[in-house]
Amino acid sequence: MAQNIYDNADFFAGYSRLPRQVHGLDGAPEWPAIRKMLPPLRGKRVADMGCGFGWASRWMREQGAASVLGVDLSRNMIARAEADTTDAAIRYRVADLETLELPQAAFDLVYSALTFHYIKDFSRLVRMIHSGLVEGGDLVFTIEHPTFMAAAHPHWIADEDGRKTWPVNGYSVEGERRTDWFVKGVLKYHRTMATTLNTLIGAGFALHRVDEFAPTRAQIEAMPELAQELERPMMLLVSARKSGT
Amino acid sequence: MAQNIYDNADFFAGYSRLPRQVHGLDGAPEWPAIRKMLPPLRGKRVADMGCGFGWASRWMREQGAASVLGVDLSRNMIARAEADTTDAAIRYRVADLETLELPQAAFDLVYSALTFHYIKDFSRLVRMIHSGLVEGGDLVFTIEHPTFMAAAHPHWIADEDGRKTWPVNGYSVEGERRTDWFVKGVLKYHRTMATTLNTLIGAGFALHRVDEFAPTRAQIEAMPELAQELERPMMLLVSARKSGT
Repeated sequence: MAQNIYDNADFFAGYSRLPRQVHGLDGAPEWPAIRKMLPPLRGKRVADMGCGFGWASRWMREQGAASVLGVDLSRNMIARAEADTTDAAIRYRVADLETLELPQAAFDLVYSALTFHYIKDFSRLVRMIHSGLVEGGDLVFTIEHPTFMAAAHPHWIADEDGRKTWPVNGYSVEGERRTDWFVKGVLKYHRTMATTLNTLIGAGFALHRVDEFAPTRAQIEAMPELAQELERPMMLLVSARKSGT
Repeated sequence: MAQNIYDNADFFAGYSRLPRQVHGLDGAPEWPAIRKMLPPLRGKRVADMGCGFGWASRWMREQGAASVLGVDLSRNMIARAEADTTDAAIRYRVADLETLELPQAAFDLVYSALTFHYIKDFSRLVRMIHSGLVEGGDLVFTIEHPTFMAAAHPHWIADEDGRKTWPVNGYSVEGERRTDWFVKGVLKYHRTMATTLNTLIGAGFALHRVDEFAPTRAQIEAMPELAQELERPMMLLVSARKSGT
């Protein structure tokens, strides 16, 4: 199963204080870019994979989604999501995406934010999602960018001009990456851009849009430290559609 | 127009000694990966954009292509391509891809190797190629990878373990990049992965396969210096199909 770091007390305490957990979706600078990639939500049956505290699940209902199933590996996260939700059309479930099975053709949209890089078997996951979507259904997800994840020591360095620079090595060597984030040894899985996109295409998805989060000028003015995200691609955003096969 | 570095005598002298120019397609380590992305060639009308000495143009005819149009900005390259070709079904033309117009629906395959990163207006080029292809026609091309091209000082560095590491900065800042390659100030245009792929999708192409060249174990055994290409993605290979619209 996937490493359940979110039920580690130290990790959970740190993670819960992140702006995006305190302030919800508006605390995530990539959220405006994600919104643009989402299809119209009215009447849609949505699965939110790695739903965390349920911020996106609740937002999608507010936008008119017919129902939302929020799934997360962490009992801590699901308990908090349930405590924060009063809407019978949103259900939460503790489950491991490595083994989860969705009912066939039961969803119009599968959404996932910053979760799939924790999953070892991406190919199985994508085929399962494809099976769970109706024809024409959408998969919209974000992951840490492979350029961001690849290096053995992923931290800022300076180039000869002192410019913030991101190191890349081991890009084509896929597999485990361990980093320290609130706790030591958080386990993620690096895949190349090519593997990510070809896995989707191979499962029967048509790629609809690919994005690499970069802050807007207005975002940088409001939060100057975001400027560094122009230097490196930190997140990959993908919108894909289940095409008729 | 695009910078015509290939008609600079110093550049041309250096470039002509590259293994891939001396030995042809088999001198390019990414060639086996490109071959896998190409559709069957028998009977196809092919345009080879940035054909250089015509190695790929001639190979495609040997594979049964009905005709090949090789286009290059460099008079030097086209002169050599014509001298090396004795096949009336291969025509060569000196032209700038920034302004070239292909006849509508006249080609089954447009192929291009390591040329499009010299082009400023990629969007115009892609729409023109789309118009030049028949329905169901293929576009297969390679470019320098955006992760490879982005940095202000694109050269190997070492991480704290001494491992070969590639620097990335300015990734989201698209536009001119000047590098020294045989001569000073070779002009290329950096675009993000997202821009490259979304431009194709927006023009009406369905993405068929994306690859990031990485050497195979056998290639590294035959040429140990290729091992460094596991550390960084150096080339992006894309196969896309003109879908019915």
